[in-house]
Amino acid sequence: MIEVEVKAHVNDFEAVEKKLDEIGAKKIKFEHQKDTYFNNPDYRDFEKTDEALRIRITTIKEKEEIILTYKGAKMDTVSKTRKEIEAKVEDSKNTGLILENLGFKPVETIEKDRTTYLFNEFIISLDEVYKVGNFVEIEKEASEGEDFKESLDKIFKIYKKLGIEDGFERRSYLELLGIYNS
Amino acid sequence: MIEVEVKAHVNDFEAVEKKLDEIGAKKIKFEHQKDTYFNNPDYRDFEKTDEALRIRITTIKEKEEIILTYKGAKMDTVSKTRKEIEAKVEDSKNTGLILENLGFKPVETIEKDRTTYLFNEFIISLDEVYKVGNFVEIEKEASEGEDFKESLDKIFKIYKKLGIEDGFERRSYLELLGIYNS
Repeated sequence: MIEVEVKAHVNDFEAVEKKLDEIGAKKIKFEHQKDTYFNNPDYRDFEKTDEALRIRITTIKEKEEIILTYKGAKMDTVSKTRKEIEAKVEDSKNTGLILENLGFKPVETIEKDRTTYLFNEFIISLDEVYKVGNFVEIEKEASEGEDFKESLDKIFKIYKKLGIEDGFERRSYLELLGIYNS
Repeated sequence: MIEVEVKAHVNDFEAVEKKLDEIGAKKIKFEHQKDTYFNNPDYRDFEKTDEALRIRITTIKEKEEIILTYKGAKMDTVSKTRKEIEAKVEDSKNTGLILENLGFKPVETIEKDRTTYLFNEFIISLDEVYKVGNFVEIEKEASEGEDFKESLDKIFKIYKKLGIEDGFERRSYLELLGIYNS
């Protein structure tokens, strides 16, 4: 699966939430995400290859869901569009231990509070990322091989409707935190 | 977790089943297991390191359970005792795709029918391994750092009670199939 995605840094969510309401976007959930990123510099240094390996623990209303995710390198120069493979797992500790025994070590854990909206076929996330800042992400799934340019155009049009015309950010949170060089 | 384990090749299960009945072992389940083993020779060649990475799909009464497992190298010269870490996953296809994107490629899929018995704290499995043969495995979980010699002695005593005094096999099914050199 390809995740067609653009992220933008915003100062506060209030104006964005008002616009989301105006365009008829539907608030669908609020969740906490705890993301642990792994790397294996001796084998394949994700800081250089632009890949990512992550265990995400999502908490919605005290219920936990754990997802192991691989992300490929970014596929263009304007967005964060990339290959993404997700697999739900039951045990974050043992999944992490398996990765560690294979040589992939935890680099950093990033926590955020995410409010998710749905607008047509697009998912809009308002992310309060601890120690980093506030971000709005707009994304859509595409199939591998599919032309995603049209979806990207639509994403930038939605940003415009939300009053966001700059602050676009292709760097990862690990780069923004200075853990990886950007 | 350490899996204290001994495996033995047997010609048929009939005599073993009779003995299991006599010593009061309890038959607890029958299942089908489909095990796909992965390797990454360019990074860490499990054929040489004696490690294993496996996705097991277990089917019991049409219900599937999927487990991702890492196994460390064998810890002694008489048994198959080794570190084992298991994590239940929901999606074998995506879990496999994540491993493949990390460079771990599927080597072989081994299928077996397993009948499991419980005898005191030991698990006894009668495995009909397709294209390989019939095997009896006796195992017990131990903690890391724990002395497992006593458990091993007990395992060999159970084998004796079952009338199995030779045919002990430390080679993996990949070795027995000639996929890995033993």
